[in-house]
Amino acid sequence: MSEHFELLLKDPQSSARRGRLKTLHGVIETPIFMPVGTQATVKGLTPAQIKEDVGAQIILGNTYHLNLRPGSELIRDAGGLHKFMGWDGPILTDSGGFQAFSLAKLSKLTEDGVAFQSHLDGSKVFLGPKEVMGIQANLGSDIAMVIDECPPYPCSKDACEKAIERTTRWAKACKQIATDNGFLESGHHVFGIAQGSEYEDMRRRSAEELSELDFPGYAIGGVSVGEPEPEMLKQVRATAPFLPEDKPRYTMGLGTPPQMLKMIAAGVDMFDCVLPSRVARNGAFFTPDGMKNIRNSRFTTDLNPLVEGMDNYTCRNFTRAYLRHLTMAKEMLSCTLLTLHNLHFYLDLMQQVRTHLETGDFSSWSSEWIARYEADGE
Amino acid sequence: MSEHFELLLKDPQSSARRGRLKTLHGVIETPIFMPVGTQATVKGLTPAQIKEDVGAQIILGNTYHLNLRPGSELIRDAGGLHKFMGWDGPILTDSGGFQAFSLAKLSKLTEDGVAFQSHLDGSKVFLGPKEVMGIQANLGSDIAMVIDECPPYPCSKDACEKAIERTTRWAKACKQIATDNGFLESGHHVFGIAQGSEYEDMRRRSAEELSELDFPGYAIGGVSVGEPEPEMLKQVRATAPFLPEDKPRYTMGLGTPPQMLKMIAAGVDMFDCVLPSRVARNGAFFTPDGMKNIRNSRFTTDLNPLVEGMDNYTCRNFTRAYLRHLTMAKEMLSCTLLTLHNLHFYLDLMQQVRTHLETGDFSSWSSEWIARYEADGE
Repeated sequence: MSEHFELLLKDPQSSARRGRLKTLHGVIETPIFMPVGTQATVKGLTPAQIKEDVGAQIILGNTYHLNLRPGSELIRDAGGLHKFMGWDGPILTDSGGFQAFSLAKLSKLTEDGVAFQSHLDGSKVFLGPKEVMGIQANLGSDIAMVIDECPPYPCSKDACEKAIERTTRWAKACKQIATDNGFLESGHHVFGIAQGSEYEDMRRRSAEELSELDFPGYAIGGVSVGEPEPEMLKQVRATAPFLPEDKPRYTMGLGTPPQMLKMIAAGVDMFDCVLPSRVARNGAFFTPDGMKNIRNSRFTTDLNPLVEGMDNYTCRNFTRAYLRHLTMAKEMLSCTLLTLHNLHFYLDLMQQVRTHLETGDFSSWSSEWIARYEADGE
Repeated sequence: MSEHFELLLKDPQSSARRGRLKTLHGVIETPIFMPVGTQATVKGLTPAQIKEDVGAQIILGNTYHLNLRPGSELIRDAGGLHKFMGWDGPILTDSGGFQAFSLAKLSKLTEDGVAFQSHLDGSKVFLGPKEVMGIQANLGSDIAMVIDECPPYPCSKDACEKAIERTTRWAKACKQIATDNGFLESGHHVFGIAQGSEYEDMRRRSAEELSELDFPGYAIGGVSVGEPEPEMLKQVRATAPFLPEDKPRYTMGLGTPPQMLKMIAAGVDMFDCVLPSRVARNGAFFTPDGMKNIRNSRFTTDLNPLVEGMDNYTCRNFTRAYLRHLTMAKEMLSCTLLTLHNLHFYLDLMQQVRTHLETGDFSSWSSEWIARYEADGE
């Protein structure tokens, strides 16, 4: 048992786990979903709404974006990311490496890191182990992620092997830096990231190599990069068993509610995803009967809440008719209220997961939940 | 003394008044500013933020907009505007007549009202005394406004005379409708609107004709329609003395902080204006030293709040550097936090006005406030 992560129980019917992760800014009950606050804000919500109305326990920030604007030195001088954005709960930040490829211009990968041009102004930027650990130390992240090489999907086995070898070398370098500068010692966590693309033996090797480095937690990387869902689940199942049982596991950038339930059954503890906030800005909202869109004309005179009986600010105070009106009138408040609902829906789902793990009926409940959700989705 | 409006004191050095207006949804301390909620939302803020963070006592809704979308019947069926938008405090609605000219296409004025085409879909709409009182009854407005004819600035004396005559006829018709349908009897208020353009004798005549109709309150209309500020103040001063002393007075669509202070000194009690919320969406914020813009590069590393010591959610929790970052990154939260600050600044100014009226130094305090505000504005 590690000091910072308590494995409270293991589900007898699946690989699901109920855990508790301690960080410098508070304790996180797992399984958990982390709302995404890319640019030092969860889009459209105040920190008070994120805490009190959404019920978030931890949020995510993006190193790639924050490093370009406003810059990590400014955030450090402002007292760190927590103080800068007015959020006093835990924060996890990614390393920025993935987005240096997916968002930036003219990215170039070398043994030292990724050189690229900013998507904002074309300025030249470099992110390697030293840079990403330095930036995340400036931000004061409760959980910092190592920089890794995420192979594309699909990729050759040879390319995949080179990627996992570099991923291990960079992970070692990151851990050394976080040890040398006192980041780990002072109670911050650094998570390793296992890769391996679609190759089960590579997945196992990457997981085992990283496990030896004894990180406080692990991400399963290279999922949700274009592969079909069964393949994604296969990769998660090929990785999780080879990660330490007494450390939290995190799949980055996932997922839909059913995907999260399936990954939890495969032994994953933590998730982040822009989906619930992004779709809210297009009028979509989550219900136990699938995702629906408030623009649909059948909601014009619907005086029910988004989800009957759901205990969040949006559902307690507003009708579908009102939210449709706001959306059709392109009012900002529509984004705020739908984002608040969707994120609360995700957090509430995680609360239900934890409860059903404790009562022992997680697997049957989860199957029924998914069946209802998928029966009537739009 | 009228039953619903208590004139608590008159300033000995000016025509300013301290009052208290009772409505079906609560008591309003005057002088007061009313945030504008055109489309059943104060842009970017939840009703909880409007009440708790801004400190609003009453908000405004726009009949023209709500009648077109989502329609006043839907709002009536949803339980009225208060319930529809989740705001349980007082609401004032305008008649929509003014916007039927300023926003709609192909407006045509007749003795019966204004025929126009919707700016949304070109559909033909008509607003006369019967329609505007019916719509505002559907909305359940605490304070409904009569429909009036607002002459353009400048206009000939002959045209102005015709406009004030029609304004009086329409006011009579509106009052009759609100009496016949029980709107007034049930405790809703209807305010008359005095016109008269730049002609002092017309201003007086309109005010006196409307005073005879014994409305629960009066607006001074036809101000802020393109005339220079001294002319606007002149018109207000030419109207207010001829309105009943024991009824609240309201200038529609005004103004800047100094304009409000000057109008309060001229005997005005109520204001509404889109300025504080609209400029927030462009990065502007109010301070005792004038309006500033958060985009200014000098705020890049400024770790002070928008206004030092100001007790609102934005100033308590966020720095200028953070708010500038949000604005430059085009984050929605920037609009929310700046709108919240600006509206609170307006409401706080009204609180200061009421306090200084009570302590007896309103005039000297107001002069000093305006001098400081105008010394360093941008």
